[in-house]
Formats: sequence, C-alpha cells, structure tokens
Amino acid sequence: MKIIVAKESGFCYGVSRAYRMAKEAILKTGGDAYSYGPLIHNQLVVDSLKTEGLKPVEDINDAPDGAYLIIRSHGAPPEIYEKARERNMKIEDATCTFVRKAQVRAIELVEQGYHLVIVGKQGHPEVEGILRHAGSGEVVYSTEQLNGVRSKKIGVVCQTTMPVEVLQKITSNLLLRSSEIRVYNTICNATINRQKSAMELAHKVDAMIIVGGKNSSNTRRLYELCHSRNENSFHIEDKSELDSLDLGKFDTVGVSSGASTPNWVLEEIVRDIEQRYG
Amino acid sequence: MKIIVAKESGFCYGVSRAYRMAKEAILKTGGDAYSYGPLIHNQLVVDSLKTEGLKPVEDINDAPDGAYLIIRSHGAPPEIYEKARERNMKIEDATCTFVRKAQVRAIELVEQGYHLVIVGKQGHPEVEGILRHAGSGEVVYSTEQLNGVRSKKIGVVCQTTMPVEVLQKITSNLLLRSSEIRVYNTICNATINRQKSAMELAHKVDAMIIVGGKNSSNTRRLYELCHSRNENSFHIEDKSELDSLDLGKFDTVGVSSGASTPNWVLEEIVRDIEQRYG
Repeated sequence: MKIIVAKESGFCYGVSRAYRMAKEAILKTGGDAYSYGPLIHNQLVVDSLKTEGLKPVEDINDAPDGAYLIIRSHGAPPEIYEKARERNMKIEDATCTFVRKAQVRAIELVEQGYHLVIVGKQGHPEVEGILRHAGSGEVVYSTEQLNGVRSKKIGVVCQTTMPVEVLQKITSNLLLRSSEIRVYNTICNATINRQKSAMELAHKVDAMIIVGGKNSSNTRRLYELCHSRNENSFHIEDKSELDSLDLGKFDTVGVSSGASTPNWVLEEIVRDIEQRYG
Repeated sequence: MKIIVAKESGFCYGVSRAYRMAKEAILKTGGDAYSYGPLIHNQLVVDSLKTEGLKPVEDINDAPDGAYLIIRSHGAPPEIYEKARERNMKIEDATCTFVRKAQVRAIELVEQGYHLVIVGKQGHPEVEGILRHAGSGEVVYSTEQLNGVRSKKIGVVCQTTMPVEVLQKITSNLLLRSSEIRVYNTICNATINRQKSAMELAHKVDAMIIVGGKNSSNTRRLYELCHSRNENSFHIEDKSELDSLDLGKFDTVGVSSGASTPNWVLEEIVRDIEQRYG
C-alpha cells in the first residue's frame, strides 16, 4: 500500500502560536496556568497540556483571582477580558491573528452602520466571540437562514475555517437583499490551502484519512470536502479508530489533518497504517 | 389567440424624465435643441424627436456655441460637461438618476482606494460614462475577463440594466481575488421588476414578443432572459417585423417591452397581432 501525506498538514500558524504560548505559561507558572475554554480543538493536545498544568475552564469564575489565563485560539467575548482584568488575572491572548482580524472587521462594520452577517456555525466559540465583540449581527450558514435579512448596508465577515463556497453562496443571495454589500473574506489562507491540497489528494487516491478533533470545525469541513471528492474518506481522531476501518482493500491511501492536529499524531497514524498493511 | 401584456412595460422612470426634458427643450428653443448622443436607445423615439427639433450629436463640436444641450439618459463623461460649459451651452442633464448613483458610487470607491470593477458591457455609453467619471477601473461582463484582477480592496458597481445573475457570478469570483469586496448593486429596480414579470409571463405563454430598440441593452437582456425560459421568444423593434413571424400557430402570446420603448409602439404591435390572428 502507498501512503501519501498531503502537503499542507499539521499545526497552522495560529495553533502553533497558541501551543507555544501555553508551553511558556506552564513554564513560567510552574504548571499552574488556565485557559479560557480548550486552547485548541484537539482533545489529545488539550489532555496532554492538562497533565503539564494548563487547566481549561469554561467559566472564568472557576479560575482564581490573579490566575495566569490564556485566551483560547478561537478568541473570547470582550466581557471575559473585563472580568479577568477586574480579578487581576495575567492575560495571555492566544486568539489567532486571523480570528482577531475578523473580530476587528466586524466591530468596524457595525460602527459604520452596516447590518452585520457572520458566515459561520452558530455556537462555535470563534463565531460567538466575533458576534459579542461586534455587539450586534446574525450568524448564518445557509441561504435559508437569511430569510428576513434586508438592510440598506450589509457587512459580512466569515468564520476563518469556512469553505469559500459557503461565503460565495451567501454573498450572492445578499446581493438581492441590499444595495450595498461589503464583504471581508476573513477565511484564513492556511485553511484554503489545506482544503485545496487535501481535495486534490482525495481525488487521486483510493481512500482518504482525515486526522483531527471531532469537535474541530476546520477538520470536519476538511473531511466533508474530501468526502465530496472521494466517498472512501474517513475522519479519525486517534489511531485506535483504525481498527474499525478495512484499509487493506485500498492500493493508495491519502492522509491529511486539521489545523489543530499535531504532527506527532499524524505521524503515529501513518506508522500504524504502514505496520498494519505494509 | 390570447395576448397578454406583461405588468411592467413601457417607459421606465429615467426614460420618462429624459423624454419630458426633451419635449420641454424643444418647446423652449422653438425646435432648436441638441442631445449628446441619442437621448434614449429607441430609434423610433429619437427619429420622432428629431423631426420636432432635437438633434442628436455624437461629437459635441457638432453643436454650436451656446446651444441648448441635453445629456442623454445614459449619462456622459465629465469632459463633455466641461466642454459644454466652456462653450456657454445651456446644459440639461437627463442622466437617469440610477445611472448617476452608479457614477457617484464609482467615484467614491476610487477615491477610497478601491480597485474599481464595473460589471457591464464594454463600449456601452452608460458604462463608458461611469468609467470616465471614476477615472480608473475596468469593465467586465464575464468571469474570464477577470483574469489578472487582484487587489487588497475591490469595489464593484454595475450597469443599471444588467441581469443580477451576472453581478452575482462576478462577485463570487472576486471573493477569491481580494480580502475585501465592496459591491454597490446599482441595478435599477425597474429593470429587475421588468425582467421578473417578463420571465414569469414567458414561462406561461406559447410565444413571447419583446418590443424595443435593437441597440437597447436592457431590451436585449430582456429578450435573452425570456428566450432562456421560452425558446419561442422574439425581439422586434417595430410592427413591420411581424411579417416574418408565424405567430398563427400559438394559442397564447405574451408581450413585454424594454425601458426605452414608448407605450404607443407596444400598443400598436398588440393591435397588429390582434388584427392578423384575431
């Protein structure tokens, strides 16, 4: 069996940076730091950081006064920063720079009187953060959700890990609903390049494995896109899941990973497939 | 045979206004007025106004100093206004208010550092006017023409008579070429409503007649849209063209007209069809 790893895989820039900041925080505090929410959407990494002393809290009240607090890579609503400041916490902001850009654009659009549309998944921490920073707006993922949206000026930003096709569909529909549409394409390049190289690979191989967190938006999207090109596509989080896949019948297998998947997880899976099927 | 006239037909607001201004100019000057280019894209109307004393000139040097000059409904480049002022002409601006809005938006976009894309037909007087007012930019009608367009900020305006689908396709493609797209949907409502009602009618009837100037962009587009719904669609400019159409084989015939087609032309054609086929 031939195994081909997609060119663009492993940690993206924003995840790398957050991981480095977490390691530094652990070092500085002697293993007594906190993260607002899971640092990145990869359980293996979050668990491993936890054993070293980075405790994820969903509620900021669960961290003590003066705590060393890392803001997760997906960002956080403004009130979290305020509360942390009030309680004398040391804030380290690991918000991905692409996410921060989307937040800033959303704030500017609302300030300039645009009705804000955030193209993304409702409830995703990145999207909720953007919405709370902007102060008003709505989150849509499909054109059906646009029903009723009508405004003289509509401003659009996009969850950084959205497929560009979703942004295109929604923008097209918005052109029927307003005389001015201002769109910031805040999809990060790393996501676009990763999706492109994975889809090209999925098209060439007999089966495709996407490695990454089941709660990771960009990984799930990567899987969906590969599945649309190759129906023998599988999304796994760790090597134990290989047991249930009968990869032996395939001659070539492609592998790619989400932006929050560390290289060692990917490499471990490649090694495991090689051992199982030679 | 049943003949159904589309709800939205006859002169649009901008054409009505230009026609009224032309009539007033003829009255005021005792039949000695000029128009920069043909006032509207309908030869019958232009010819009829000519006999009353409105002379269309393609070159402003063909009008005498101090002449009473009407700017055509499609607008004119800024240098025409300058030249006319220098030569003490009395300018009456019949530029359609929707066209003027597109010109103003284009000027603003260029002033604010956007790379201007005008969605429209190269060489059309409205489009050329917008481009010359803005000072820089490019005219595109299909995504193929976008090759090479890449800029941090892209601003878009649209020829007022474009089908919205063309604007949607080009905007979708531009999202891949820039991180910010600001689109003014300058398509006039009259055009959209006219296209909508004509297409609905074309879908219901056995044959569809579109009445209007062969050089009228909005009429040609109306014909193309109806033809995509009903292949028995015909574009005619005056009733003599009915001779070559064998409408006798159809039970229901729909009729609509371009924005620059006067009601009397449409009514004449409806009467003629009734007389021919009862």
